[in-house]
Amino acid sequence: MAPPPIPISVSARHIHLTRAHVEALFGPGHRLTVKAPLSQPGQFACEEQVAVVGPRGRLDKVRVLGPERPASQVEVSRTEERQLGIDAPVRASGDLAGSPGVRLEGPAGAVELPAGAIQAQRHIHMSPADAALYGLKDKDWVMVRVGGGRGLIFDDVLVRVHPDFRLDMHVDTDEANAADLQPGATGTLIREATAVAPQPAD
Amino acid sequence: MAPPPIPISVSARHIHLTRAHVEALFGPGHRLTVKAPLSQPGQFACEEQVAVVGPRGRLDKVRVLGPERPASQVEVSRTEERQLGIDAPVRASGDLAGSPGVRLEGPAGAVELPAGAIQAQRHIHMSPADAALYGLKDKDWVMVRVGGGRGLIFDDVLVRVHPDFRLDMHVDTDEANAADLQPGATGTLIREATAVAPQPAD
Repeated sequence: MAPPPIPISVSARHIHLTRAHVEALFGPGHRLTVKAPLSQPGQFACEEQVAVVGPRGRLDKVRVLGPERPASQVEVSRTEERQLGIDAPVRASGDLAGSPGVRLEGPAGAVELPAGAIQAQRHIHMSPADAALYGLKDKDWVMVRVGGGRGLIFDDVLVRVHPDFRLDMHVDTDEANAADLQPGATGTLIREATAVAPQPAD
Repeated sequence: MAPPPIPISVSARHIHLTRAHVEALFGPGHRLTVKAPLSQPGQFACEEQVAVVGPRGRLDKVRVLGPERPASQVEVSRTEERQLGIDAPVRASGDLAGSPGVRLEGPAGAVELPAGAIQAQRHIHMSPADAALYGLKDKDWVMVRVGGGRGLIFDDVLVRVHPDFRLDMHVDTDEANAADLQPGATGTLIREATAVAPQPAD
C-alpha cells in the first residue's frame, strides 16, 4: 500500500536570531512579536524584519522567525545568495561552521555575523508516530516525488524526527519554483533511492 | 551498461525576436550581431539586449538569442515572472498560445507582445545518432538524475531530436539552483520513469 502523501511547505528567506542579536537590532529588552504560527508547533513568524547585507547587495524585509535560538542563522535561496554576493553552503539547520557571514540591519542597530548564512537542506519534519508509519528514523535520507507538469524527485531529503514535529516537508523558493509547486502541494515518499538509478561517476 | 552522461546547460532569461521586432526595437534594417555561439549549432547569443516590462516590474538587459524566429518568445524563470508580475506557463519552445504578453523596450523603440512569455519546458537536444544510442525518439519524455548534495531527478524532460542538434540538456536558473548545479554538470538518463514510484492521486 502506498504511504500517505507528505504536505510540502515553501520556506521563503528568513532569519533566526539570538537573544543578544534581537536586542542589538531592535533595542535593549526587546521581545519578538508573534505575527503568525508556523506549521511546526511553537515556531512562529514575527512582526520583526531585518535587512541582510552582503558584499554585492542587500535583501530588505527579511522575516524573523521565533522563538530565539542559540545561534543566529540566515536562510536564503541560491538566487538570493547571488543578489547578496555570497556563496552559502547547503546545510541542515544549526550546522553553521564555515558558512559565510553577512551584516544585519535593524531599526535599533546592526550586527556583523561572522558566519550563519546557509541554504536550508531540504527536509521533512515528522513525529515519532509518523516515522513509524513510514518506517523511518531521525537523520535518514529519503527521496520525495512531486507531480505536475514540472515533476521532480527531490533526492537528499533529510528526515527530522521529534515529538514536537508535525508532518511537513520544507523546500526553499528555488526548489519550489523548479517543481512549479502550487499551494497545498504534496509529495510521495520514495524510500529505496538506490532502486532508481546509479549516479554518474563524475 | 549505463548510458553515457548528458551535459547540462543552464539557460538564463533570454528572448528570441522576429525580423519585424528586431527592426522595431533596434531600428530599420538592423541585423543581430553575434556575440558568442551557443551549444546548438547555428544558435548564438547576440550583442543586443532588451528590457522586458510586466505589470509589476521590469527585467533590464535581457539577452537576445539569434537567429531570428517566426515568433518572438521571452523565456524567464518563475522567480523572474514574479518580478514581472506575470504567470507564464511551462511550455516547449514555440508553443505560445495563451501565454501572457509583455512589453519589450529597445534603444530604437518598444513592442507590446500580446503573448510569448513562457517558462521553458526542460528538454534535451540530441542528434538522431544520440537518440539511437539512448533508444529514444523525438518528443519522448524521460527523467534525468543529477548528483551532488542537492541531488534531483528531473521528471518531465522532453526529448528533442534533430540532425542539427548537439547533445545537451537545458534547464532554467530556478531548476539549476534547486539542484545546486555547477559548471560542467552532467545528468544520468532514466528511461523507465514508471519504475520509480507512482505519483500521488491528487
